[in-house]
Amino acid sequence: MEQFDFEEERIKQEIKRLKAKRVLIQLPEGLKPHGFRLARVVEKTGALPIVSADPCYGGCDLAMAEAESLGVNLIIHYGHAKLLRHERVPTIYVEARATINVDDAVEKALLLLEKWRKIGLATTVQHVQKLDNVKEILLHAGRTVIIGDAGRMNYPGQVIGCDYSNVKSIAGDVEAFLFVGGGRFHALGVALSTLKPTIVADPYEKRAFSVDEEARKILKQRWASIEEAKGAKTFAVLVGLKPGQKKFEEALIIKEELQKAGKKTHLFAVRNITPEALMNFPEVDAYVNTACPRLSLDDPSKFQKPVLTQNEAFIVVGKLSWEKLCRKGLFES
Amino acid sequence: MEQFDFEEERIKQEIKRLKAKRVLIQLPEGLKPHGFRLARVVEKTGALPIVSADPCYGGCDLAMAEAESLGVNLIIHYGHAKLLRHERVPTIYVEARATINVDDAVEKALLLLEKWRKIGLATTVQHVQKLDNVKEILLHAGRTVIIGDAGRMNYPGQVIGCDYSNVKSIAGDVEAFLFVGGGRFHALGVALSTLKPTIVADPYEKRAFSVDEEARKILKQRWASIEEAKGAKTFAVLVGLKPGQKKFEEALIIKEELQKAGKKTHLFAVRNITPEALMNFPEVDAYVNTACPRLSLDDPSKFQKPVLTQNEAFIVVGKLSWEKLCRKGLFES
Repeated sequence: MEQFDFEEERIKQEIKRLKAKRVLIQLPEGLKPHGFRLARVVEKTGALPIVSADPCYGGCDLAMAEAESLGVNLIIHYGHAKLLRHERVPTIYVEARATINVDDAVEKALLLLEKWRKIGLATTVQHVQKLDNVKEILLHAGRTVIIGDAGRMNYPGQVIGCDYSNVKSIAGDVEAFLFVGGGRFHALGVALSTLKPTIVADPYEKRAFSVDEEARKILKQRWASIEEAKGAKTFAVLVGLKPGQKKFEEALIIKEELQKAGKKTHLFAVRNITPEALMNFPEVDAYVNTACPRLSLDDPSKFQKPVLTQNEAFIVVGKLSWEKLCRKGLFES
Repeated sequence: MEQFDFEEERIKQEIKRLKAKRVLIQLPEGLKPHGFRLARVVEKTGALPIVSADPCYGGCDLAMAEAESLGVNLIIHYGHAKLLRHERVPTIYVEARATINVDDAVEKALLLLEKWRKIGLATTVQHVQKLDNVKEILLHAGRTVIIGDAGRMNYPGQVIGCDYSNVKSIAGDVEAFLFVGGGRFHALGVALSTLKPTIVADPYEKRAFSVDEEARKILKQRWASIEEAKGAKTFAVLVGLKPGQKKFEEALIIKEELQKAGKKTHLFAVRNITPEALMNFPEVDAYVNTACPRLSLDDPSKFQKPVLTQNEAFIVVGKLSWEKLCRKGLFES
């Protein structure tokens, strides 16, 4: 199993310092297998641990209402950096830094980066502490390296599922991006936000690969979804119920624009946007998702109807062009 | 499509009377296809309709926290009778009575009830208004008919997924039950709670059938799950997050009993109990579900680990016998 720093000593100290009696442990899906063990760590302090078993995909999804309803004094949120400005329940973020070595994967990525001189770096919070080291490897190989910092994320070069401001801030200055981390999800975000060649150095699989072809495929699918939605007669604008995903005012604006464009439109509130949930409404021809821009983006084929982002909806009503959206990046809000 | 009474005139009047500006429409899965149309009905009053797209399986699952978070002044909850004692947001329950005729299905059920003289009646809120009529048909066919009323439900003879007090109150006085309504779910509840022969008169499919064999199969599976859980070393006790499903004190008691019996046990909080959610915790050998007793009961094969009800957990720790549980009924709390 991959190794992460769960900062057990720190959480024990914080529980004691805050005199927390009930502690909610929230973990992203990949770290949930550690939940039972971490409950034991919390229990040793004398506090009552409660593990959240519901899905969690980001710092936007902090289980505040759940904690309040359970009389919890402290949330320990694993795997994501702080995202919300204010928590109603005291919260410790444990970023779960990965201890795995990334050098081998970066060396392999160098072969795929051969064509380009100026390289931008990106990673998730799990590996931010490795970026300086990665930079050294690339400098040593004769590259110019830039790590973006647009000021919105907690760390330079850090990206999250829905925020690529750090890579966008340097996209004009680099020829390609190197993403350090596991899987395709965040690397695809980099490619779709910048339209630059993007290479992944995956330390878990110890390999490097490009996500450019997949990004191109997604762009085509997005275009097709927008075209299909243009013909839709009825729309539902989805309002997210997770604390960092609720954009009520934005949803109202889009609803109004769609109605002005002659589309019958209503608001739908939803916690988890799943193909099953959206299948229940045969009268709805297309959805606009104001909650999490990534949910339907990477795999629209799972959904039977077009599920557009806010900006894609503005294309439908003629307030934005496809070219402009591609320039500003698919995740821009 | 089946026809139900959505009481559109009443909801329009209530919205005006309460001067509601934002209205949340909540529907069980089977009625969700009407959501978009009902939003139009609400919109005509001048209020802003919001349709809840999250799954909803009972009056226990009233979207109060969601309504509060969206600034909603009125919830219209369809398909279930009032269950919670107190709502934090004004709520109208529209029981969605079915207009479908049940006589044909009841006539067919009579053939399957031939052996028995004393028949107990049960139904869901959708058909409670038909019970007197059904009683007449049975009386006419020479049967003695009893409709139970234990005082917990809104209507005599009414059952809901997790409460069969009305049928249990008369189980000693009847030879068999006739359940009037769609599907097997509630009829299985009748059979499992009373251990009496149970015949379904399904007006939607216009047919009658027995659920006794399936009930016997479920009982066998429950016994097997309990036996498997006896060998488990680690338990998670699930605490429900839905307003009518949160039984924190009960969960604490079960946790303590399991710990006394030498089982490593922690509390897990969960909104939707799905096989996927429980698969994330390889260290947990068995679960105790204090949220909704029906979730894992009817189809344990969907879950990889035993998921016991509260009472089944008491069997594991030797505080209750299987025979006694069968006598008191699988849903007794």
